[in-house]
Amino acid sequence: MFNHKSSDIITIPADVPISKQRTFKDHYLTLTKGAGKLFLFACDQKIEHLHSSFFGPSISLDDNNPQHIFAIAQQSPVSALATQLGLIARYGLQYPAINYIAKLNSKTNLIPATQKDPQSSLLWTVEQIVHFAKQSALNIAGVGYTVYLGSEYEALMLHEAAQVVYQAHQHGLIAILWMYPRGKAVTNERDGMLIAGAAGVAAALGADFAKINVPDDTTGYTSAQWLSIAAQAAGNTKLICSGGTKKEPYAFLQELYNQIHDGHTAGCAVGRNLHQRSLPQAVAFTTAINAILYHNASVEEAIQLVEK
Amino acid sequence: MFNHKSSDIITIPADVPISKQRTFKDHYLTLTKGAGKLFLFACDQKIEHLHSSFFGPSISLDDNNPQHIFAIAQQSPVSALATQLGLIARYGLQYPAINYIAKLNSKTNLIPATQKDPQSSLLWTVEQIVHFAKQSALNIAGVGYTVYLGSEYEALMLHEAAQVVYQAHQHGLIAILWMYPRGKAVTNERDGMLIAGAAGVAAALGADFAKINVPDDTTGYTSAQWLSIAAQAAGNTKLICSGGTKKEPYAFLQELYNQIHDGHTAGCAVGRNLHQRSLPQAVAFTTAINAILYHNASVEEAIQLVEK
Amino acid sequence: MFNHKSSDIITIPADVPISKQRTFKDHYLTLTKGAGKLFLFACDQKIEHLHSSFFGPSISLDDNNPQHIFAIAQQSPVSALATQLGLIARYGLQYPAINYIAKLNSKTNLIPATQKDPQSSLLWTVEQIVHFAKQSALNIAGVGYTVYLGSEYEALMLHEAAQVVYQAHQHGLIAILWMYPRGKAVTNERDGMLIAGAAGVAAALGADFAKINVPDDTTGYTSAQWLSIAAQAAGNTKLICSGGTKKEPYAFLQELYNQIHDGHTAGCAVGRNLHQRSLPQAVAFTTAINAILYHNASVEEAIQLVEK
Amino acid sequence: MFNHKSSDIITIPADVPISKQRTFKDHYLTLTKGAGKLFLFACDQKIEHLHSSFFGPSISLDDNNPQHIFAIAQQSPVSALATQLGLIARYGLQYPAINYIAKLNSKTNLIPATQKDPQSSLLWTVEQIVHFAKQSALNIAGVGYTVYLGSEYEALMLHEAAQVVYQAHQHGLIAILWMYPRGKAVTNERDGMLIAGAAGVAAALGADFAKINVPDDTTGYTSAQWLSIAAQAAGNTKLICSGGTKKEPYAFLQELYNQIHDGHTAGCAVGRNLHQRSLPQAVAFTTAINAILYHNASVEEAIQLVEK
Amino acid sequence: MFNHKSSDIITIPADVPISKQRTFKDHYLTLTKGAGKLFLFACDQKIEHLHSSFFGPSISLDDNNPQHIFAIAQQSPVSALATQLGLIARYGLQYPAINYIAKLNSKTNLIPATQKDPQSSLLWTVEQIVHFAKQSALNIAGVGYTVYLGSEYEALMLHEAAQVVYQAHQHGLIAILWMYPRGKAVTNERDGMLIAGAAGVAAALGADFAKINVPDDTTGYTSAQWLSIAAQAAGNTKLICSGGTKKEPYAFLQELYNQIHDGHTAGCAVGRNLHQRSLPQAVAFTTAINAILYHNASVEEAIQLVEK
Repeated sequence: MFNHKSSDIITIPADVPISKQRTFKDHYLTLTKGAGKLFLFACDQKIEHLHSSFFGPSISLDDNNPQHIFAIAQQSPVSALATQLGLIARYGLQYPAINYIAKLNSKTNLIPATQKDPQSSLLWTVEQIVHFAKQSALNIAGVGYTVYLGSEYEALMLHEAAQVVYQAHQHGLIAILWMYPRGKAVTNERDGMLIAGAAGVAAALGADFAKINVPDDTTGYTSAQWLSIAAQAAGNTKLICSGGTKKEPYAFLQELYNQIHDGHTAGCAVGRNLHQRSLPQAVAFTTAINAILYHNASVEEAIQLVEK
Repeated sequence: MFNHKSSDIITIPADVPISKQRTFKDHYLTLTKGAGKLFLFACDQKIEHLHSSFFGPSISLDDNNPQHIFAIAQQSPVSALATQLGLIARYGLQYPAINYIAKLNSKTNLIPATQKDPQSSLLWTVEQIVHFAKQSALNIAGVGYTVYLGSEYEALMLHEAAQVVYQAHQHGLIAILWMYPRGKAVTNERDGMLIAGAAGVAAALGADFAKINVPDDTTGYTSAQWLSIAAQAAGNTKLICSGGTKKEPYAFLQELYNQIHDGHTAGCAVGRNLHQRSLPQAVAFTTAINAILYHNASVEEAIQLVEK
Repeated sequence: MFNHKSSDIITIPADVPISKQRTFKDHYLTLTKGAGKLFLFACDQKIEHLHSSFFGPSISLDDNNPQHIFAIAQQSPVSALATQLGLIARYGLQYPAINYIAKLNSKTNLIPATQKDPQSSLLWTVEQIVHFAKQSALNIAGVGYTVYLGSEYEALMLHEAAQVVYQAHQHGLIAILWMYPRGKAVTNERDGMLIAGAAGVAAALGADFAKINVPDDTTGYTSAQWLSIAAQAAGNTKLICSGGTKKEPYAFLQELYNQIHDGHTAGCAVGRNLHQRSLPQAVAFTTAINAILYHNASVEEAIQLVEK
Repeated sequence: MFNHKSSDIITIPADVPISKQRTFKDHYLTLTKGAGKLFLFACDQKIEHLHSSFFGPSISLDDNNPQHIFAIAQQSPVSALATQLGLIARYGLQYPAINYIAKLNSKTNLIPATQKDPQSSLLWTVEQIVHFAKQSALNIAGVGYTVYLGSEYEALMLHEAAQVVYQAHQHGLIAILWMYPRGKAVTNERDGMLIAGAAGVAAALGADFAKINVPDDTTGYTSAQWLSIAAQAAGNTKLICSGGTKKEPYAFLQELYNQIHDGHTAGCAVGRNLHQRSLPQAVAFTTAINAILYHNASVEEAIQLVEK
Repeated sequence: MFNHKSSDIITIPADVPISKQRTFKDHYLTLTKGAGKLFLFACDQKIEHLHSSFFGPSISLDDNNPQHIFAIAQQSPVSALATQLGLIARYGLQYPAINYIAKLNSKTNLIPATQKDPQSSLLWTVEQIVHFAKQSALNIAGVGYTVYLGSEYEALMLHEAAQVVYQAHQHGLIAILWMYPRGKAVTNERDGMLIAGAAGVAAALGADFAKINVPDDTTGYTSAQWLSIAAQAAGNTKLICSGGTKKEPYAFLQELYNQIHDGHTAGCAVGRNLHQRSLPQAVAFTTAINAILYHNASVEEAIQLVEK
């Protein structure tokens, strides 16, 4: 039904100055392992979800300590660990081998949308990230920012997102936007057309990657078809789906397989499905994901790496 | 009833410094093809309309991919492609021959006016556009900005619009304002007096062109008469009408012909009526529009270029 | 009842640096023709009133074209034309002989006070005006700014007004404040005490001139007595009354005569009463006003200049 | 019951740089006449009260002209005249002998607290005051700023107040805060505990003087006892009470005497009780106040200076 | 149940530049006495609580004078006195031996959460603190900032907090965040999961220490167990509990003992429990706290130091 872009081409956007194209390309190849796919370990939940993503029934006690996510990132084949600059600053020197994505905005989940639409402001500027990377010698490959489309604070976030992408490119960094329709005006956050639209907004803002929610099956197309539509709507901005809440390994890997093969997404973002597991289980799980993303493994082949 | 300004005179506004007058004049002549008329391919809908303008019944599947609008712009006689800087950055280097208008603000259509009046904030500064043009060597001929008159956020947008025009002129760029009365206080967005007023605001802000909606026929004058009134109210700021939703070619061309010949507008803005068509159909349609704008063609002569 | 200040003294405020006192004095003498009175052609209605002040029954068709106000200003003895910088930029080079007051803020009249209190933000900074004057070589003698006292946005406007006056004086420019009590908290905008208070605020902000509405007769004193009270309350800040809606020439001139002779105002602001007339009628009317302001004419003497 | 600080010690705060300590000390000694007490002629009512404090029954007609307050300040032993910078700029050069306090924020009294909590924004920066003082050679000894504690805009005003004090001290200027609990959340503005709290806030913000309202007698202590508690709560920040509405001379002087001798305040702020009197009466009244503040006069001794 | 971090390791975060690591380490060792524990004398109540924390039944009259807190800090083994910069500026030169933490934001307690969610804005920048420390030669070891998680103004405070931590580290200063969930959306401020979440936010923002409220016992774990969970959730950001309202010495010391030994917090913050006592009692009390924190004393051993 649709032609799909090949995911192995690097698009160097025109707002990356010539003097930074080498840097940008290096970051891009590092993050995508030269295969056009991104395996993002997305860990901004310390602020976004407070403690509920780190402690509770069915969550490994390992996860109560923030060092856990660094240990996973260090020992596993994830492309990069995305988390707030503050946390990177507190543990980065102990984990200098990790590639980092500095998540630049965050909010807690305390205020329900019925009370106030979501507002998430820039915590650090791209300039500060660049300065920090130079000072600390840590591998900061890019930056992340969340946009809540449809929120009454959308104007503020669209502005900051556009600036984050532009500034990141000016410094040769990769820009990833978390694109989430949310707020009183949004009745179904997982509507396929809406998610394709959100993917398109990311492209219009100039992002290299957009992290989106998995569309649901309710409106004429399957979830994977909607993903495929969204992937094309995003043009040469690549899509990755959020992993969401913790799932059984087989179900997770099957969904991922479908996203990649039918939905034509260019990798995935995983957070809770990794860090809520113990360190050895999390590392094993990353090898399974890695096999699907980069080694063309089937779900059956991948699940064996988990159960090993 | 009214004397109409001749559209072939270049007004170089007094806020263009002498050192930039040559640049301004070059941009102006390029955009108007030396004929005082602008054929704007207006494509900011990736944010403004999300995916509904790009995918659905009666929309070519070509339109699902944002590259489509660049392909059209490259192969057709439009004056310039107006879209967000982010999208220009992602595709511009593949399409260096296109003239670009960087659209500087945008909002989604998710929030109904009954919930909150429209607010659209600057995403990139004129300084960044100028910097980008120099870095990328792309042809950025001007900038665009939308003002929602009558919105509770009008003060913010009038401020930003005035600054955008002033800064653009300081750098020899053409400034185009999208002038849309909208919000709880606006009962009829297409009221002729209101649209003439909006055109006058664009002049007071110093814009070179104002993109307006077509006035309706309801209040004493025909739509074309209201356009003519508005064109004069705008003084030496030139008017172009929005193309609006996709129409049958003949109807579209007839309306355009009337706008130009009776309404004394100085060109047109077309978006969905081009990109919702397949690439060959879109290109053919641009030749028809071009014939009316620049070669004094009749509607009958023009329609043959579409049906060829 | 009150001692009235003589209007022929120049007050050079202490925030005009020595190096700019000559410039300030020149501008002041130009604007007041050495007679201490200002004849302001106030034309910010393109934004303030949208098109209703320029087109309609009893309005000359000349007024539909913004060039009309420049033509009037050029051919008549007004002290200066006050309008938005954008419009000055679009026509100024064709009318280099006019003295301009750059009106720095404006809002439309679309939102009723019952919906939202008036908010009018700075469109251009004084720095930009100074830069523009140098670049264009146009005669920018001063700046104007509107304050809506009693609006819920009063704090914002008082701040901007104070800054506008201070910055203008730093550059030797004349500062004129439009002082209008308005908003849900204001029950009678023309209450004499309120207008005297508004005049006093202009003085506390350091303005050279305050443009006020004519007080009504309802509270113990006549309109002219209230003006006289207000004129003294403003101290060495001079007052001019707004001309308001179009009136019959005789009535207008009689009111003006009373304002000057009984109300001790130092000139007048006229807008619609000039530009809604045809060019020859408008010019004739300015000579009548001029005669009253500067040649001590009686109303009867002045009216003959109109009817000539 | 409490130990009281001696009011004749100069506290040079640690945010006054060494290079400005001499300047600070000079200003402090000038304002306190070397006696640790401040006689502030507080005249920000042109904005705060509009015209009602300057015109009406029982107000001298002299007060209708803003020059009146300068004339009083010049001829009387007040420490300094506090008013808006704009007014200082308009009259200062005629009255170069006066010591000035530049009042940096103000609001009108048009909006009732039931409609919107009080918001008063900075009109001029301390940097501008310093620049102005140098340019004009006027004696600007310090700055003033009003904080409405308990207002929904408290955060904005606490921020500005802290900045004003810090910046003032950086330049060797005296910082005076008007500390007024006000807003929907404040049920009794004259509650003793609340006023003592407001005095403490001024100290925490680093102010040299706090201008407070006189506490009422309703809660366990007399007004003078509350003042004494507040004076100690303010530490080495000195307190002065607002003079409030016009009173009979004897009653005013008696209250002042009690504030100083029982309430341990360090001077007073007087506005309406001076400028609503004719020039000779106002000047006579200042000599009476001066006698109480600086010459240890009894009320009976002081009243004779008024009646002389 | 959980592994606990050893509290004697210094974490130098990666946003401290190499040139400032020595400074940071010195400040850290000073504040923790080389033992990894912080004894913070937290005195921002002059603004936060107005006068109710300083005057009233069961409060020593000493506390009415702000000098009292400086006297306590000077004569006792507290690590540092945390208070607003303004107050430090007014008394610091008399008490140069004290280590100071400059508290950068504050609000009063006048507005109930039912009226408006808590908003506390930055009063001074970190740059100003650094400048002040250099000018005054006072020992400013760090900065403090309060975040109200769940407030409708959370975005503003998260932004400022992230900036405060980053800037503090850039200058080698210790950053302490007061982490308080509060606002209409927060039903139980002392919920254990919420407090653990708040501790995690402090880590994500990069803070060195987080000051939290003591969790209650209501949800499955004891207060001390929740503290232990929170301590681990904070990673290498150290936790200290607020002392809260004045308590009996034995009860206070028992709670503190449990917090340290069972809750694995790294010190404590005490304010009212010190300054509401007379100077000798307060000093005696600090020696008891000091014994528990740094000399491994039992509650029984410690209480003898109080009663001595």
